[in-house]
Amino acid sequence: MRFNFPLILHTLGTLVLFIGLLMLLCVPVAINYWEEDWMALIIASLSAVIPGFIMRYSTRNNPNKELKKRDGYLIVTLAWVFMSAFGALPYVLSGAIPSYTDAFFETISGFTTTGASILNDIEGMPHGLLFWRSLTQWVGGMGIIVLAVAILPILGIGGMQLFVAEAPGISPDKLQPRIRETAKRLWLLYLSLTVIETGLLMMGGMDLFDAVNHALTTMATGGFSTYQASMAEQSPYIQYVVIVFMFLAGTSFSLIYYSVKLQFKKVWAFEEFRYYLGFTVLFTLIVSLGIFFASEEADVEKAFRDALFQVVSIITTTGYATADYTSWTPFITVLFFVLMFIGGSAGSTAGGVKVVRYVVLIKNSVLELKRQLHPSAVIPVRLNNKAVPRGITFNILAFIMIYIFIFATGSLLLAASGVDFTTAIGAVATSLGNIGPGLGQVGPVDNFANVPTAGKWLLSFLMLLGRLELFTVLILFTPYFWRRQ
Amino acid sequence: MRFNFPLILHTLGTLVLFIGLLMLLCVPVAINYWEEDWMALIIASLSAVIPGFIMRYSTRNNPNKELKKRDGYLIVTLAWVFMSAFGALPYVLSGAIPSYTDAFFETISGFTTTGASILNDIEGMPHGLLFWRSLTQWVGGMGIIVLAVAILPILGIGGMQLFVAEAPGISPDKLQPRIRETAKRLWLLYLSLTVIETGLLMMGGMDLFDAVNHALTTMATGGFSTYQASMAEQSPYIQYVVIVFMFLAGTSFSLIYYSVKLQFKKVWAFEEFRYYLGFTVLFTLIVSLGIFFASEEADVEKAFRDALFQVVSIITTTGYATADYTSWTPFITVLFFVLMFIGGSAGSTAGGVKVVRYVVLIKNSVLELKRQLHPSAVIPVRLNNKAVPRGITFNILAFIMIYIFIFATGSLLLAASGVDFTTAIGAVATSLGNIGPGLGQVGPVDNFANVPTAGKWLLSFLMLLGRLELFTVLILFTPYFWRRQ
Repeated sequence: MRFNFPLILHTLGTLVLFIGLLMLLCVPVAINYWEEDWMALIIASLSAVIPGFIMRYSTRNNPNKELKKRDGYLIVTLAWVFMSAFGALPYVLSGAIPSYTDAFFETISGFTTTGASILNDIEGMPHGLLFWRSLTQWVGGMGIIVLAVAILPILGIGGMQLFVAEAPGISPDKLQPRIRETAKRLWLLYLSLTVIETGLLMMGGMDLFDAVNHALTTMATGGFSTYQASMAEQSPYIQYVVIVFMFLAGTSFSLIYYSVKLQFKKVWAFEEFRYYLGFTVLFTLIVSLGIFFASEEADVEKAFRDALFQVVSIITTTGYATADYTSWTPFITVLFFVLMFIGGSAGSTAGGVKVVRYVVLIKNSVLELKRQLHPSAVIPVRLNNKAVPRGITFNILAFIMIYIFIFATGSLLLAASGVDFTTAIGAVATSLGNIGPGLGQVGPVDNFANVPTAGKWLLSFLMLLGRLELFTVLILFTPYFWRRQ
Repeated sequence: MRFNFPLILHTLGTLVLFIGLLMLLCVPVAINYWEEDWMALIIASLSAVIPGFIMRYSTRNNPNKELKKRDGYLIVTLAWVFMSAFGALPYVLSGAIPSYTDAFFETISGFTTTGASILNDIEGMPHGLLFWRSLTQWVGGMGIIVLAVAILPILGIGGMQLFVAEAPGISPDKLQPRIRETAKRLWLLYLSLTVIETGLLMMGGMDLFDAVNHALTTMATGGFSTYQASMAEQSPYIQYVVIVFMFLAGTSFSLIYYSVKLQFKKVWAFEEFRYYLGFTVLFTLIVSLGIFFASEEADVEKAFRDALFQVVSIITTTGYATADYTSWTPFITVLFFVLMFIGGSAGSTAGGVKVVRYVVLIKNSVLELKRQLHPSAVIPVRLNNKAVPRGITFNILAFIMIYIFIFATGSLLLAASGVDFTTAIGAVATSLGNIGPGLGQVGPVDNFANVPTAGKWLLSFLMLLGRLELFTVLILFTPYFWRRQ
């Protein structure tokens, strides 16, 4: 048989079951606030648990335990689709988001850690649903860590393949002998950071509910906030805390693991991290100066904080906002548009193209000029002091090209659905990069409610594409994938 | 010695001398219309002829006739800079364009066959200067043909390298045994087509002056018009004539040569041409439908003609307009923005990325998905039924990446000079692609007069970069170039 369908169904069933059970976590929150969404949460939970159970147990006696690479692509893509399809139920059943399109958009925006929202009145939402909304991002982030560190490299996809193939000591195999162990350690790290951020936010005066929600969505580089104004009305202390944790969440988790073990030398030896830090510092400086000279902002600290917050939020693909980056100067607007294409580090929860790909791209571009002068010499790109195999450099260039091609096509299609130019390119860039806010009508102070229905499905698909590093999803649309060997 | 400076100076001097003599061609035009620019033209001519003569004759006894590859890069880049620096003199000296920045912008826009203009009242310009303006484009186009077919392949740059290395029977060496012969034949073709178009335009009722000017700027895919309204007020017949010649000018001249010799099979075997034609047909259909359904345009023929004209004008990087593509729907605006990144065929006078690079890019992207499933297989891109060497595919990917990087950086810098978002990205895309009209404030019904001075110099530089296929210019900014071997 071509695919191991029983095993695929078994895995997806387990996931749907898990999602259903997860919804029950929100019931105590709803009851605590005496809000009526607890009923909807329980019904939604059952609507996921029952089919999930059936899928899982009807396929439990499958003797073929072997999972082939092709099964892997199907499972990963369908996992995000199923999670979002069932995860949308609490919103619809409670009547909080009556349209299934909107609910699906909000949910896949959660599970892909994008953070684009269609909600116009977040403070008016029941607390149980808000908690569910934050949980979708946190679980999505968790999924991405396993995916990036353990699954995608096996499928030959994603920036981390570099480390598997090349970087000394960064290979997940060396980090911990077995994948399951690696995932456990990283999750523990993820959980610990979430708990620490919650504590720090509470020390700044946030209540437990808001603190937990923001910690969940920061660590996932998701960006869903329980405030309609996002982080704009929070104290400088809270904003700085969020900045630090966004930056951490956009760092390769392997590096955080080294830091915890105080192996800072290993961290610094890691070129992607130096570029990631460099980009952040450079763009913060530029934006700070831009704000300071262009606006009447006399407060240097505030100009710096606004710049830093927005730059870190977009580079890490989190998407929180303390200010509207489209309201300063045209230069800053273009700059943030460009920043949407960067993305955080490989092996973090951040989306987008990722810094490591740019490192290879930049080095290769400079070397191409050198190759021009020495056409016969073989000049490979070097990363972390090792030569990058040509096939991987090739793959990275192809990835970025396909990314831009999808961006262009997506912008066209979104504009065809009736959205203006700036909004179209901003919405597509932010969805594909799993960021959150875009430009124009979907800028940091607006939301995606007014995007036409067809546009919402398109953006949902783009979030999925971006989150799964393009190839995982695109490969399903090629004849090579479905052809019998 | 590192560079052969006497020979470089000799070549540049010859060129400046030639430019100076060329200006004299405009004097009879000025006198014919009894306009006062003849004086300025003669003084400008002398201001170029004298230094050109000195540069050429002071270096005539250089015994070292050997031109190295590195000298080639310098000569090509400086050639366009010198031509533009001296070519701007007639505008300044006549007072028609008082600012040297504006005059330089207009001139380099001419020699690079871009067609972006700062003129607000074209009909008010003296005829001699308008003729000079059209001549800069025609001579620029002539230069590009030699460059693309004969010089850049030797320097290892540009889409034509593919044909030199690979394509059967398309190699310039096989087209004609010697470069000089090739250039002569192509120029004869270029001249003949210009004459034919002039005749056809006059048959449509255009007077000799306008017909010659438009023929000169069509064949160069330049797009300077002697009408402020560009082609908007011309008859359908004239518009169709211009469409046909824009399309021809955007076709590889080797293919036109084959057509003239009635070897149509060779033309059709050429994959780039099929894609070029396919893109044109596809986008014309989409835009026609877009105009027809979105606007109240009931005239099917007019909708089709407007779509065809604008699509061909942008794809071939000519830049004439019969309608404002930013005024229909947001979808069409985005589409034209995307079209700005395509460019005509390699070996034509068109600028931009060029179709052949996209052919390789598209094929390689699809193959990358196949490679994902078969990581050990070596799967090369095939063009015209031959495998493209990996180094060339690599070079093409690097080219497109650098192109996009320069687009992003350029947009940022232009926005920093105080231009709004849409205008900034439109102006940079159109300058880098040597097209002409952009978006926003520099759309088809506007011009570049209001771009700040710094922005004009930036755009001038981008026109040069785009015209010389990036690498020729960029390589001068690398340490590899200046390092002693």
